[in-house]
Amino acid sequence: MFKIGLLGAGRIGNVHAKSITAHSGCQLVAISDVNMASAETLAASCGAVARSTADIIADKSIDAVLIATSTDTHSNLIEAATAAGKAVLCEKPVDLDLSRALACQDVVAANGRPVMIGFNRRFDPNFAALKRAFDAGEIGKGELLSITSFDPSPPPVSYIKVSGGIFRDMAIHDFDMACWIFGGLPESVSAVGTSIVDPAIGQAGDFDTAVITLRYADGRIAVIKNSRRAVYGYDQRVELLGATGLLQAGNVLENTVTKTTTAGAIGAKPEFFFLERYMRAYEAEWSAFIGALQTGGALPVTLKDGVNALAVAEAATLSAKTGVPVALKDGKPVQP
Amino acid sequence: MFKIGLLGAGRIGNVHAKSITAHSGCQLVAISDVNMASAETLAASCGAVARSTADIIADKSIDAVLIATSTDTHSNLIEAATAAGKAVLCEKPVDLDLSRALACQDVVAANGRPVMIGFNRRFDPNFAALKRAFDAGEIGKGELLSITSFDPSPPPVSYIKVSGGIFRDMAIHDFDMACWIFGGLPESVSAVGTSIVDPAIGQAGDFDTAVITLRYADGRIAVIKNSRRAVYGYDQRVELLGATGLLQAGNVLENTVTKTTTAGAIGAKPEFFFLERYMRAYEAEWSAFIGALQTGGALPVTLKDGVNALAVAEAATLSAKTGVPVALKDGKPVQP
Amino acid sequence: MFKIGLLGAGRIGNVHAKSITAHSGCQLVAISDVNMASAETLAASCGAVARSTADIIADKSIDAVLIATSTDTHSNLIEAATAAGKAVLCEKPVDLDLSRALACQDVVAANGRPVMIGFNRRFDPNFAALKRAFDAGEIGKGELLSITSFDPSPPPVSYIKVSGGIFRDMAIHDFDMACWIFGGLPESVSAVGTSIVDPAIGQAGDFDTAVITLRYADGRIAVIKNSRRAVYGYDQRVELLGATGLLQAGNVLENTVTKTTTAGAIGAKPEFFFLERYMRAYEAEWSAFIGALQTGGALPVTLKDGVNALAVAEAATLSAKTGVPVALKDGKPVQP
Amino acid sequence: MFKIGLLGAGRIGNVHAKSITAHSGCQLVAISDVNMASAETLAASCGAVARSTADIIADKSIDAVLIATSTDTHSNLIEAATAAGKAVLCEKPVDLDLSRALACQDVVAANGRPVMIGFNRRFDPNFAALKRAFDAGEIGKGELLSITSFDPSPPPVSYIKVSGGIFRDMAIHDFDMACWIFGGLPESVSAVGTSIVDPAIGQAGDFDTAVITLRYADGRIAVIKNSRRAVYGYDQRVELLGATGLLQAGNVLENTVTKTTTAGAIGAKPEFFFLERYMRAYEAEWSAFIGALQTGGALPVTLKDGVNALAVAEAATLSAKTGVPVALKDGKPVQP
Repeated sequence: MFKIGLLGAGRIGNVHAKSITAHSGCQLVAISDVNMASAETLAASCGAVARSTADIIADKSIDAVLIATSTDTHSNLIEAATAAGKAVLCEKPVDLDLSRALACQDVVAANGRPVMIGFNRRFDPNFAALKRAFDAGEIGKGELLSITSFDPSPPPVSYIKVSGGIFRDMAIHDFDMACWIFGGLPESVSAVGTSIVDPAIGQAGDFDTAVITLRYADGRIAVIKNSRRAVYGYDQRVELLGATGLLQAGNVLENTVTKTTTAGAIGAKPEFFFLERYMRAYEAEWSAFIGALQTGGALPVTLKDGVNALAVAEAATLSAKTGVPVALKDGKPVQP
Repeated sequence: MFKIGLLGAGRIGNVHAKSITAHSGCQLVAISDVNMASAETLAASCGAVARSTADIIADKSIDAVLIATSTDTHSNLIEAATAAGKAVLCEKPVDLDLSRALACQDVVAANGRPVMIGFNRRFDPNFAALKRAFDAGEIGKGELLSITSFDPSPPPVSYIKVSGGIFRDMAIHDFDMACWIFGGLPESVSAVGTSIVDPAIGQAGDFDTAVITLRYADGRIAVIKNSRRAVYGYDQRVELLGATGLLQAGNVLENTVTKTTTAGAIGAKPEFFFLERYMRAYEAEWSAFIGALQTGGALPVTLKDGVNALAVAEAATLSAKTGVPVALKDGKPVQP
Repeated sequence: MFKIGLLGAGRIGNVHAKSITAHSGCQLVAISDVNMASAETLAASCGAVARSTADIIADKSIDAVLIATSTDTHSNLIEAATAAGKAVLCEKPVDLDLSRALACQDVVAANGRPVMIGFNRRFDPNFAALKRAFDAGEIGKGELLSITSFDPSPPPVSYIKVSGGIFRDMAIHDFDMACWIFGGLPESVSAVGTSIVDPAIGQAGDFDTAVITLRYADGRIAVIKNSRRAVYGYDQRVELLGATGLLQAGNVLENTVTKTTTAGAIGAKPEFFFLERYMRAYEAEWSAFIGALQTGGALPVTLKDGVNALAVAEAATLSAKTGVPVALKDGKPVQP
Repeated sequence: MFKIGLLGAGRIGNVHAKSITAHSGCQLVAISDVNMASAETLAASCGAVARSTADIIADKSIDAVLIATSTDTHSNLIEAATAAGKAVLCEKPVDLDLSRALACQDVVAANGRPVMIGFNRRFDPNFAALKRAFDAGEIGKGELLSITSFDPSPPPVSYIKVSGGIFRDMAIHDFDMACWIFGGLPESVSAVGTSIVDPAIGQAGDFDTAVITLRYADGRIAVIKNSRRAVYGYDQRVELLGATGLLQAGNVLENTVTKTTTAGAIGAKPEFFFLERYMRAYEAEWSAFIGALQTGGALPVTLKDGVNALAVAEAATLSAKTGVPVALKDGKPVQP
């Protein structure tokens, strides 16, 4: 029975708290947050105790921490927690800055504790089924991967400003999906971004609509489409063309009801946002983390995976700004 | 090059005229109609000549006739045309009266000319694909067959009164589908009918909504659902549960476009009515008729098939009226 | 915080134990089973105590019991529990015998405690969405209801023999669905049953394949198709034709992945059986029960609903045996 | 009744011959081909006469020609036919060389005869329905357009070598679709191409897999995915995200049959290739051409449209080779 500390009691911290308390192999003992009241409220509903982050990290009886704090604290907390001997599951992204993430990676290597990055989509049953079918050779060699990833509505511009930009904040999930499905980093990244949804997002130096093309050394191509606004909900689809077929993972719909009238046949929208769509994925993610701790087996998502996705995000950011493709070499973007 | 006479220049006669003229193996030479002007108009657009029915039947240069006249004339025309040595494709139903149809069958047997009944649905590419898959053993033994058959809107009550009732007029197609797919007649027929769509239909002694259950001697069951009104269009589906799987033939939609908004995902309706849905089926039906004449091979739908469907219709009519199941013996309903 | 006793620790008891423990408004305190070891195992995993059924019913601190024992004990336990002042959620069916169920209903009325019957399908999000749309008038007056309800594989013949037959054991869910959607009992029931899947089922006096047609006094018709074997999984669909449209609630599939190759486009099967398909329904059912206790509001499914479904099942059994439709009068089948 | 000459009796010439002969407003009188035997065979089946191209163009009784010859002859034939006073429907592309196409455009302007380019996809009922819905404002402002366009299998390398490359030969349809839907030319084009399907295609200097991103001046983005090989058939889909919704036009499937077994639910593949998928589109295209001649109304696709698509193709070719985006200025690519 692993004892778990949860750092961060915001929206995503609340999601994780449920998975942790529902899991029979661990116990949620302590919760921290910059807002102590949030930590206390969540702790009360979970049979845990609200404590400071420093206390939780220092507590030798706690085996692992789940880091669900703001992105700017991730690297520091990963380093501190692993230095204190703890296993870590940290929300994505590792950091907004690739060199900081790389430094963190070195520290973690020295500390020798397992660190998993929370790329929840790998644990979505649909994407996981697509990946299994692909790995089983069901469509032969993969050639052209397409990821559609639209949010229902843009976050406030105040958030956009500190988000690191659409590529680091939103597309990073899709970059991880591409690296996961295709098994590694592309050799170059081309990104086109615009702010057609909301000019204020452009004025804040970011994009709300983007297409990123990843080119792999052996000729495979992945293309990612992002929008901050699909009014109908969270549009999350993956499609992979291979030598002997096509795999598609579609949206999860709100229900299976269709109404046909003179106006046509109307069915349900996709689940609204990540809490609805990926609830089962968050549970499976946590199970996989605890499972790896229990068996001592390999983590299904590593810190290296988090760093790789960030490297693609940095390349995409650079490409969208300069207007030219950006190569990746030794896991880092090459200034064009 | 077969010379063809078309008897009947109404709506369905016009449909057939297109198939006949488009077929390279035959020539539409003459058209008759109770309304001579209709025959003339259609003939003019087809390069054919308007003549009387008697003339067409008497013309020895005409090889075959397509009978698309009103139902009450079918038996007589089939007899006259085969007596004159012609091959016949006759629209369904053979007759509204089973004993008349049986008598016609005897005459045709004596005349020794091929007669095909126009059960167009057998030639629908979707139902044909379902039938092929079933016959190929893809779902093992057939156990439970379901046919959904809804018209977009009821005909006028004046038509209802002379139609022979929903079972002879509308469900007869579905009875043929069941006999075709299951390969023969059921041993008993139970029908429930109501007039919930339009009470005037009930006052005319007919039903607008019905469910008919056919029970086969070996335990197979077929259930047919009919409605005279599905406001969204022509709903024509077949579903067959077998020992190792399920086959479903769905509707043909107006297009493949879907629009997803906050209201849901809206796609196209089914094709509106039989002219739209079964256009390709009518062409394939005519091709099959001419093909059989060319090769001397067996007709894909026989007069016997037409008589069988009528026997089921008569049993269903009787069952709906008496409220009890009606057995079929030697191809005829047994008075309950 | 309601204290709950669970009677029955079999497969469905285990399902309910999860819903009860996960619900924040109640506490699972005691579990009984004819097999004490089963009760103990389940109790251990739930923080509850294994006790005898009599003890649980006698314990005044327990507010409600969930009855998940074998069907033959339901009526007795409902009576005993309500006599002891407890609220009850009882698995379907109330009883295999309609007169016993009616007697139980009288006792419950006298005891004055709330009794809900576990018709879980009403709480399936898809069927519930269909019902809401219908009640909101989205397709006008309902005319023709179709329910497809296939199990993945037949139970052992030993179970068949004590099950009360396919209509009381399996179709009873569908009878409740029809009464729920159409708001009451039909006026007559026609059933056709065969044992084409497994002759041994026929030898045991039961059917494995059946079609039941319910006729309502105002002309509405409901048709139910049952099979004990759909090898591809649990096929659970509802379709309702109304004056202005069609509502369909489809199956819940295992995932959203499709693979298209030269062989066609292959997607996932339906969820395998009721535990997979109706997991969310069982949770919602329990929530609704506790919610009604908390507010003192009306139960969403009553003992009367359970009695009604049983009356239809008894009529269907009679109809399938005699071969003629059976009328329902004052909530009871009329011997034909 | 317009008299029509058909130049080219190859595969696509045969397709057009059907549309021309089936149309009641015109008559196919003459057919030419570099292979006179091909022209004769086709002419014999159409009631037309095989003649030389020069003869047909010189024949003053012929009102219009359909040019279905090899691409390298298009510009010359368009110029000659319009100089001879004929209306022209010419297969895409106008030319493999943009400057030649621009010169042709000037000649046509001087000759003052209508020239339509055969972008058949605009006449596909599904894409046309999507376009109508978009133009009607059903999803608000268009933001992100995605076109999937996969052929079933690559042409022979000998064809690849004279094809002008994937962008001029295959993607040109998609470029026209983007310009049609978005109403004009993008401001820049980025293309990534690889030859992962067949290295021989790469050795011939071409690509078999490509992603092209078009960026419009106002921030709209269109992304086009091409592959020369989707083994399951012709994959032709369009998807458009707008401010208030998403429009998707899906593939046309071979039939509507689904088979569900323990292996899953298998449905039909897309129609195999353009002859199957776009048969109705070719008919509608020809109808639109004749309709414009009859009414003197505007052509639905102009020579300018053909030139625009070619400009994008040239920009994409340049971008894929140089690895950087290519701007379009005054309808021409700007050398990067």
